[in-house]
Amino acid sequence: MSKLTAGIIVIGDEILSGRTQETNSNFIAKQLVQSGIMLVEIRIVEDNRDTIIQNILHFHKKYTYVFTTGGIGPTHDDITSESVSSAFNEKYCFHPQAFKILEEYYPKGEFNEGRQKMAKMPENAKLILNPLTAAPGFIIKNIYVLPGVPEIMQKMFVNLLQNIEKGSPKKILTINTNLYESIMATGLTAIQNKYLDCSIGSYPYFNYIDKTTGVNIVVSSWNLNNLDYIEEEIKKMILLLGGKSSIV
Amino acid sequence: MSKLTAGIIVIGDEILSGRTQETNSNFIAKQLVQSGIMLVEIRIVEDNRDTIIQNILHFHKKYTYVFTTGGIGPTHDDITSESVSSAFNEKYCFHPQAFKILEEYYPKGEFNEGRQKMAKMPENAKLILNPLTAAPGFIIKNIYVLPGVPEIMQKMFVNLLQNIEKGSPKKILTINTNLYESIMATGLTAIQNKYLDCSIGSYPYFNYIDKTTGVNIVVSSWNLNNLDYIEEEIKKMILLLGGKSSIV
Repeated sequence: MSKLTAGIIVIGDEILSGRTQETNSNFIAKQLVQSGIMLVEIRIVEDNRDTIIQNILHFHKKYTYVFTTGGIGPTHDDITSESVSSAFNEKYCFHPQAFKILEEYYPKGEFNEGRQKMAKMPENAKLILNPLTAAPGFIIKNIYVLPGVPEIMQKMFVNLLQNIEKGSPKKILTINTNLYESIMATGLTAIQNKYLDCSIGSYPYFNYIDKTTGVNIVVSSWNLNNLDYIEEEIKKMILLLGGKSSIV
Repeated sequence: MSKLTAGIIVIGDEILSGRTQETNSNFIAKQLVQSGIMLVEIRIVEDNRDTIIQNILHFHKKYTYVFTTGGIGPTHDDITSESVSSAFNEKYCFHPQAFKILEEYYPKGEFNEGRQKMAKMPENAKLILNPLTAAPGFIIKNIYVLPGVPEIMQKMFVNLLQNIEKGSPKKILTINTNLYESIMATGLTAIQNKYLDCSIGSYPYFNYIDKTTGVNIVVSSWNLNNLDYIEEEIKKMILLLGGKSSIV
């Protein structure tokens, strides 16, 4: 267990309708593992005020960090900032620094009502700067509010990650084998029961192009400094069962 | 609103660690929209017994259909079937039909302990057949338990969809434009406020390869039979603002 935990709330009807394949949470997940922050849960919810408020408050109490993506653009369907303000009984108003950044970014006369909306957020929010398209995200309590467009979200996330407390990266080891996972099930269970400080996952795959099948065995731990002896035991078991193994 | 609702619970540490980009929920989401079933929420949770039970019971009460993916394989980390059994105080035991299917599928002497585990499920479950690799999913109450491997999950989902109650597909219309969304924000808000029976979403994109930017405006409705007049209003607004539009 890492003492630092996280939850992600993805806000967007376009994910729930299947229109958009969500990828932001995968990007964030990878960064968190490397940063020693344990991602515990991802929720994908509708563009609905009450739903957003409820989930924000629930995650706020439950996790060290809460990241939201989506719903902070200029149009009527972007309701994340207003909802987060309500969740914490904060005034939803123009943030002077955000207003200034956006005013300077747009050509004179083009800082219209929609664009101004992107400067509105909870009164006591701190900005997350956006190096691509200016419109900032924000931080309030332990909530980090990010946009939905992946290219922009990624740049902003990498920036904010530099400024938050991190832990020791999770140790992860992946062993690939040509054996079926059912053949290894008993052996893997025994190894898992022997080493309770690590978690052993077994992930079969079927490659329809080159017709190969196999299993990736993933050993991971927040506490152990060394996974070598677990690696050796798994490799030995695979060999005994007549299989091949390699480190991925 | 569709009277038929759904929630998806994705069970898998490999998603939360960022190892795997989750795609099953996007496949299911697309199928549900076409089937007149409104997907309200997706949760991605850990391979943890209590977490699975809690989410199953919550979704069971909240949605018409609940789909789970992942955690029904042969290894120790596959705990979905056992957890779902516990959630409903059902005995977790061999399902005679599932046992028979698997016994016949594997060569003599190869129906080992791990493979037998895939025949264990809640006592009163009904099977979801698996045309690819035999190991079935199952239905208990309104919970549909599916595997995590996308190719297998997809075949099984398409099969089960034939046997459940469906509604009228959601009407969806997508208008692409070269305008910035901030320019259209006021106009779109007015149109949205005029037609409360539809939902208008605005999705900007940045294509870093051909350097194009634009917005997709998505109009969707569960109730309206015809979106033509809304399409006309949006196209007229785009034209007035000096933009181009096309139906995607």
